[in-house]
Amino acid sequence: MQAIRWKNSHLELLDQRILPHQEKWLKITNSQQAADAIRLMVVRGAPAIAITASYGMVLAVRAGENRREASSKLLEARPTAVNLRWALERLAAISDEGIEQEALSIHQEDLEINQAIGDFGAGLLTGGVITICNTGSLATAGYGTALGMIRSAHARNQGIHVYALETRPYLQGARLTAYECQKEGIPCTLITDGMAGALMATGKITAAVAGCDRVALNGDSANKIGTYGLAVLARYHSIPFYIAMPTTTLDRRCADGKKIPIEERKADEVRRFHGNLVAPAEVDVWNPAFDVTPASLITAWVTEKGIWKPPFPSA
Amino acid sequence: MQAIRWKNSHLELLDQRILPHQEKWLKITNSQQAADAIRLMVVRGAPAIAITASYGMVLAVRAGENRREASSKLLEARPTAVNLRWALERLAAISDEGIEQEALSIHQEDLEINQAIGDFGAGLLTGGVITICNTGSLATAGYGTALGMIRSAHARNQGIHVYALETRPYLQGARLTAYECQKEGIPCTLITDGMAGALMATGKITAAVAGCDRVALNGDSANKIGTYGLAVLARYHSIPFYIAMPTTTLDRRCADGKKIPIEERKADEVRRFHGNLVAPAEVDVWNPAFDVTPASLITAWVTEKGIWKPPFPSA
Repeated sequence: MQAIRWKNSHLELLDQRILPHQEKWLKITNSQQAADAIRLMVVRGAPAIAITASYGMVLAVRAGENRREASSKLLEARPTAVNLRWALERLAAISDEGIEQEALSIHQEDLEINQAIGDFGAGLLTGGVITICNTGSLATAGYGTALGMIRSAHARNQGIHVYALETRPYLQGARLTAYECQKEGIPCTLITDGMAGALMATGKITAAVAGCDRVALNGDSANKIGTYGLAVLARYHSIPFYIAMPTTTLDRRCADGKKIPIEERKADEVRRFHGNLVAPAEVDVWNPAFDVTPASLITAWVTEKGIWKPPFPSA
Repeated sequence: MQAIRWKNSHLELLDQRILPHQEKWLKITNSQQAADAIRLMVVRGAPAIAITASYGMVLAVRAGENRREASSKLLEARPTAVNLRWALERLAAISDEGIEQEALSIHQEDLEINQAIGDFGAGLLTGGVITICNTGSLATAGYGTALGMIRSAHARNQGIHVYALETRPYLQGARLTAYECQKEGIPCTLITDGMAGALMATGKITAAVAGCDRVALNGDSANKIGTYGLAVLARYHSIPFYIAMPTTTLDRRCADGKKIPIEERKADEVRRFHGNLVAPAEVDVWNPAFDVTPASLITAWVTEKGIWKPPFPSA
């Protein structure tokens, strides 16, 4: 399964807003469309948006756009995931002629990173594992970060049973993680976000694992809204809580979680469900897309270079 | 606002499944319809289903039904809320001739209970208050339990701002609590269930308050799924956590929370949203309607007789 295809003349993105019931590929032919696709969540997941932005820069260069302006436009599409900045800065150092190859390298390397995270992390997971959002093939170049760990542990017959939080408001858990697990034959039970505590109290959960959108140097980790609450619940139940972290998601310029910008999205994501109002039309809403889990609640960070704890290695 | 109207010849229930966008009253003319309305959640909330079942018994008596069978049918409609059993046992001691008056008394007394809970509890709440599910007029004869406390605190100008958890899967928070607050002019912000932890971390929340469906003698309290997780988060953030408890919800025959039956509802409540699939059609689901919060996580129980802590007074 993959969500991003480079077609040499253009980019194709699997529209993740309408999965799993419709599989529709959108054609992206310029950098503005790439930025819009990131902003509107056609594509989501920190690694996947970095790859999409990289190809967006290739399209910008081909169209003769001002590279600095194109890069800013892509960077501003979503503020929290640092992978976007990382990829754009990497491309800024590359000549026009080399940019397509560099974007392809970013894409390919992400797949290798995920497989390494899976290899390092598989041994940490056995039995019932709870996860939030989608951190699988659809969020990355393929394989996945937290879901990559789960995939590897499942391949090693470690009795994995995934409990997927549906992850309101955007339902990445219900729509994407449950769908990926089903396609891969990984046993999966879907629960609502409010069930995490009661599930942990049953004793069925042996580990919690999540991805990340930006990790500060001290280990404070921004990820999908709900991750912090999940980490508190895991701590209360003495369940280890792991963050799957490509080192591209570590922001070495950010000292701690207080400095991580948290995107707030529009109220109608909460008020509506598939376009239908489920709340009073004018009710006030708070809709942060991410929260920050302090390092003290995280057991370990699983990277492509090994299992890390702060202070993180300097390279 | 009220959800239950006794019309002498029949009962009328506001269909809470389609609020707030449609206000439709259903006519209930026999005990089977009353049991179905409880089971299908036309009416919900522990006090409100007790009142509905009471009128169901009036209709059963009028139709010449076997009273024991009618009572069993109503009792089995939903297993967790003990108020249902309490009301049916109270009516079992009453003659056919007196049963309508007794049902009317149960209905009227519930309103008085809620107002007393509001009076006793109002002083506990000030500023930002987080709540789950709907515990307002729609869940009771009127006024509400936890939302009654909030209503009283708001009337006393204690700077109340309600943060309503949307409360998946049934969205009682989004559909009913937000709607009641809006109608009453109580400031209210709607959030998804996964946002509770991040919200508490902002420092804006000074108290958490919930209703209950059955409280064991040791104080363990069953309430809407998600309440337990909310209580753990409140404890972690040193936020007081209150249960609004009509004494009709205290099950003195139940020693502790392990003995409370927890209803599991059908998978499609989680898989679907207003009839639309939001997950793979065949994905496994766990859908407990309630969870149990241990007494140790609860700061106090606000009853119509005062603010209680276990061991509870014997009458």
